[in-house]
Amino acid sequence: MILLFNGICFAPKAQTVVEDFKPSSTNQPGKDYPMVNSEGRVRVQIKAPEAQHVQLDISAVKYDLVKDASGIWTGESNPQDEGFHYYQLWIDGAAVPDPGSLYFYGAMRWGSGIEIPAHDQDIYALKNVPHGQVCQILFFSKSTNSVRRAFVYTPPDYDKDLNKQYPVLYLQHGFGEDETGWTNQGKANLIMDNLIAEGKAKPFIIVMTYGMTNDIKVGGLRDFDIKPFQTVLVDELIPFIDTNFRTLSDQPHRAMAGLSMGSMETKMITMENLDKFSNIGLFSGASISMDDVNKATDFKQKVKLVFVSFGGREIESMKNRPSRGAFGGDPKENTEALKNAGINAHFYVSPNTAHEWQSWRRSLYEFAQLLFKN
Amino acid sequence: MILLFNGICFAPKAQTVVEDFKPSSTNQPGKDYPMVNSEGRVRVQIKAPEAQHVQLDISAVKYDLVKDASGIWTGESNPQDEGFHYYQLWIDGAAVPDPGSLYFYGAMRWGSGIEIPAHDQDIYALKNVPHGQVCQILFFSKSTNSVRRAFVYTPPDYDKDLNKQYPVLYLQHGFGEDETGWTNQGKANLIMDNLIAEGKAKPFIIVMTYGMTNDIKVGGLRDFDIKPFQTVLVDELIPFIDTNFRTLSDQPHRAMAGLSMGSMETKMITMENLDKFSNIGLFSGASISMDDVNKATDFKQKVKLVFVSFGGREIESMKNRPSRGAFGGDPKENTEALKNAGINAHFYVSPNTAHEWQSWRRSLYEFAQLLFKN
Repeated sequence: MILLFNGICFAPKAQTVVEDFKPSSTNQPGKDYPMVNSEGRVRVQIKAPEAQHVQLDISAVKYDLVKDASGIWTGESNPQDEGFHYYQLWIDGAAVPDPGSLYFYGAMRWGSGIEIPAHDQDIYALKNVPHGQVCQILFFSKSTNSVRRAFVYTPPDYDKDLNKQYPVLYLQHGFGEDETGWTNQGKANLIMDNLIAEGKAKPFIIVMTYGMTNDIKVGGLRDFDIKPFQTVLVDELIPFIDTNFRTLSDQPHRAMAGLSMGSMETKMITMENLDKFSNIGLFSGASISMDDVNKATDFKQKVKLVFVSFGGREIESMKNRPSRGAFGGDPKENTEALKNAGINAHFYVSPNTAHEWQSWRRSLYEFAQLLFKN
Repeated sequence: MILLFNGICFAPKAQTVVEDFKPSSTNQPGKDYPMVNSEGRVRVQIKAPEAQHVQLDISAVKYDLVKDASGIWTGESNPQDEGFHYYQLWIDGAAVPDPGSLYFYGAMRWGSGIEIPAHDQDIYALKNVPHGQVCQILFFSKSTNSVRRAFVYTPPDYDKDLNKQYPVLYLQHGFGEDETGWTNQGKANLIMDNLIAEGKAKPFIIVMTYGMTNDIKVGGLRDFDIKPFQTVLVDELIPFIDTNFRTLSDQPHRAMAGLSMGSMETKMITMENLDKFSNIGLFSGASISMDDVNKATDFKQKVKLVFVSFGGREIESMKNRPSRGAFGGDPKENTEALKNAGINAHFYVSPNTAHEWQSWRRSLYEFAQLLFKN
């Protein structure tokens, strides 16, 4: 802030950066940068003495860095939403990961990510509570003639009472992501550990595998064929899980949920397999209308939970897009209609977040508390 | 090769690159570069139109890349040893990961790695055989007041017969690496899956946690205090594993092994805890001498297996360093002396490899076939 001679305050907005930056929780061990301040600004730093032009690229905006005498470039972004964001650096025209950050698979690449502390970060904090395991399994898929990978969360006491069986949630990532997203970015295992420790959710198994979505050309979702993935999930992975884990393998104890593209997959697969799934979660994407309900057989008898959620900023932008109705109808109105028809349907809005992981962490947190309770 | 007018062949060695490059198996999904050819050369490519100077940095040598008209830089290394290697790119003085490769934790950073096909890669190939799981566990450590992470390999049939109990191997990474190394770079789980499928190894559990080695200043190993890690491993992790997994928890069924710095840790911890460990594996680092044996109580009665290994190139370089004897003695002579004293001791040399992961994959492959058989 500069106090001018005539008493008028002149405060150019771009320069009022609060200087309380701290290393991010997603930094590599021992790395000071990237940093985040209390406004949610991201500050990066990299040594590139011979470079001409270095930029930070986050949330679709590029910010120029400034070089000091020792060849170190530094700069920061505007304030970001709470939660997790992908980013990258540009060095003389090359897009590269920041060597200071941990790496995450999203936007169809392993690259930098950063955590902006959130007011509700306690829901996914690493605490001294009993922890479940996240296990990598490798299963043979006949339909694709390949050994495929999934991650399986088993709740804290899974290995204590070997007679106990658990319900199962199949949980899908979004377009450009893979089976690592829900634990690395989504912190699904920590959300469940904390909910179970507080007695807020029933213990259940979560299975996360690759949704085969990245072969889809962007914009070509209308032509997406669910069949190949449905075969892997329903005919190959579910029997493998029911053989190798202590599951309750009947329809009342099997759920599916997904985010964005994964919510479309969830809707398509569950609506065609209502004899196999009873609980449905749709985050930031699909919703279920009364038209869908009426087209299905015995939907009201078979489906015990429909959960639909969005980020608050997604809802805002929908209001300006009346064409939204053409793509499955308004999700809130759809869900209200289900409720009015006596279906156990819930609509959740994540405050002040967009199409991003903080919306989906909160969605899982809400959804998990409703799951397998009917 | 250029045939000159007078019939003399002129073949500058640096230019005889065999043009049979293929994308590496460690590339990110859908990425063409980096590539490897049949000589083991690594070719990288990156778009950096404004850059002045781009280099590939692998096995401690930097290779200049060449820019084409569209701003894409390309270049390749000299032939590399079979197996896994860390590398990075330099763009105008900035050291960054290659955006085309997967990332691995080593050299104290998450960064690029590349796989050079090996003549014996079948031992760690992903095959359609029964696969074990690799589970991330989180356990509270009172001595460090932190929630710590380990990865646990359980063999293929672990979840089939819930009455069966298994021996356990505690397996340590090297300096600059962490608990992800043995599965990501070492492919320990695939080596075990294949050995078990062929009936060559007894099924056992493997536990991999962080050896707390990266706080050591390079060159300061003589001052290394094993106590903090020994407390975490012996007093905290072992009881956690024996509570949460179906282990055979007596001394005859517990082993420890490690590579490089991890072999030093293994020697220090097992020699002080012979009531807890019966099988010992030391890869590319420590060995056990008759002096060590004589200082310990009941070594010959308690220790059922001592396995010591090195890369062939490590053995070569030792011959030129007679001072080696000061650091615990010649490892082959030490191991021969143990054999002569009636101890079940084995010395293995990995052909044509150095202080690198291919030596350690082969060491595990050999060691696992000897484990828990006495």
